[in-house]
Amino acid sequence: MALDENWFTETVLDEGLAFSLRIKERLHAEQSPYQRIEVFETLHWGRLMAIDGCVMLTERDNFLYHEMMVHPAMFTHAEPHTVLIIGGGDCGTLQEVLRHPNVARVVQVEIDERVTRIAERFFPELTAMNGDPRCDLRFEDGVKFVRRTATACFDVVIIDSTDPIGPAQELFGSGFLRQIHRILRPGGVLAQQSESPLLHEKNILKPLHRSLAEAGFARRVTLCFPVPSYPSGWWSCTLAGKACEVRDFRRTAAAARPFTTRYYNEDVHRGSLAVPEFCRGAFDG
Amino acid sequence: MALDENWFTETVLDEGLAFSLRIKERLHAEQSPYQRIEVFETLHWGRLMAIDGCVMLTERDNFLYHEMMVHPAMFTHAEPHTVLIIGGGDCGTLQEVLRHPNVARVVQVEIDERVTRIAERFFPELTAMNGDPRCDLRFEDGVKFVRRTATACFDVVIIDSTDPIGPAQELFGSGFLRQIHRILRPGGVLAQQSESPLLHEKNILKPLHRSLAEAGFARRVTLCFPVPSYPSGWWSCTLAGKACEVRDFRRTAAAARPFTTRYYNEDVHRGSLAVPEFCRGAFDG
Repeated sequence: MALDENWFTETVLDEGLAFSLRIKERLHAEQSPYQRIEVFETLHWGRLMAIDGCVMLTERDNFLYHEMMVHPAMFTHAEPHTVLIIGGGDCGTLQEVLRHPNVARVVQVEIDERVTRIAERFFPELTAMNGDPRCDLRFEDGVKFVRRTATACFDVVIIDSTDPIGPAQELFGSGFLRQIHRILRPGGVLAQQSESPLLHEKNILKPLHRSLAEAGFARRVTLCFPVPSYPSGWWSCTLAGKACEVRDFRRTAAAARPFTTRYYNEDVHRGSLAVPEFCRGAFDG
Repeated sequence: MALDENWFTETVLDEGLAFSLRIKERLHAEQSPYQRIEVFETLHWGRLMAIDGCVMLTERDNFLYHEMMVHPAMFTHAEPHTVLIIGGGDCGTLQEVLRHPNVARVVQVEIDERVTRIAERFFPELTAMNGDPRCDLRFEDGVKFVRRTATACFDVVIIDSTDPIGPAQELFGSGFLRQIHRILRPGGVLAQQSESPLLHEKNILKPLHRSLAEAGFARRVTLCFPVPSYPSGWWSCTLAGKACEVRDFRRTAAAARPFTTRYYNEDVHRGSLAVPEFCRGAFDG
């Protein structure tokens, strides 16, 4: 069946694949100083935000991504008080961080303020906690912010970026990751969105592990989880520890978490640490 | 971007989603007595077999499905000697079963001989072991075969069927599953393909667990794993035991397996047993 203008389609030409969602209407479209941002009402996946033609999130499945970008890192760190989010403009990651009652301060540095303003308008369920006094929302270049940040300031850093092409490319390089290592406190944990295990094992995940190693992160592991609306439906988050073992986590605390999740639990966390056979050697350090 | 005739597209209209692969050419198309079977050469996913417009397998990602339909069941059973496969015409499941050296006999009952003949021609890497003397390939209705099979004949039964609409619907009902329970030996294990955890939790997985319970299977668990070319990219296999605990498995044997896998290993097996929070209560018995 040919797909007409009633479908939003994201194509990944160099993988020869496409994913489409049936839409009712386009609610918003604008060109920000950085990128093209669109919001659609879909027929079965709630609202959809797309940036430069790529799915950023849908209401139906973003819980998978946001929970897995946050809770494994937070329960790997012994006692996370201060968190830095680079990117994350839709505020879904921020919200999951704020659910942890021991968090005293979260700084989010998103380069494009328009992403957050559009999320506030069209995805209010993600931005409902933005008024929390522990939040510090900044709109500037994350690379520059990190460069001028004092040493050993944060317990957890989450890099919730778009794909490592264009503006986000620098976020995957060893120069920037060395800066992240510097601003983490001892025992600190970095969580970085790291694309699809199937599509990007060789061209993104292996180089990322190499960059992390060069940046000083001896302990690393890539967690795998489903995100149906992202290319291949299978995604990953890479954890790297500064003097912190990232394959262990506070299992009892994770089981007793004082908030609701839809995907994450202590078994899912442990399960996501399993390294697929074809990724052995590439995904753990 | 609109997709032209250079793409194969599978649409799931009642979920408002579609998945597409770029094709080079159509290699084969025929209407068998049961269904429409097509084979395409894709640009990046190797060859693709489609039945009635739905992706059955691609060369690139079928290892995920076939390994997870077979190895968890085989390492859950204490010592599987005799295996029955219902469906599985492409022979990818059969091949994974034959890798287990303790298997003495595998009967495969596929209703549509044309699927197997087309697999032999276009997917020889899946059918390479079909000449193994332990194999007994039959082309007939699996429901009728099971009905006339003697009690307590098989150690493992694998239902590798198409979606539970049309001909495969009966394979998900308690009447048929009671027959499976009957032909399993004590300690036997059933593995059934059980669709997408995200899309089909309520309309297929919950009813399947109910049917399995009615059929006498007190122990059940649904394993989740990625299959990028199936709707949502996230798939499942449900294990049910006849006096066999299906959450335990022979971990040491799985780690020492005398054959190569690309996805499965003992950590992946354990990880796939994790029940997503939104499926708690629905996925385990």
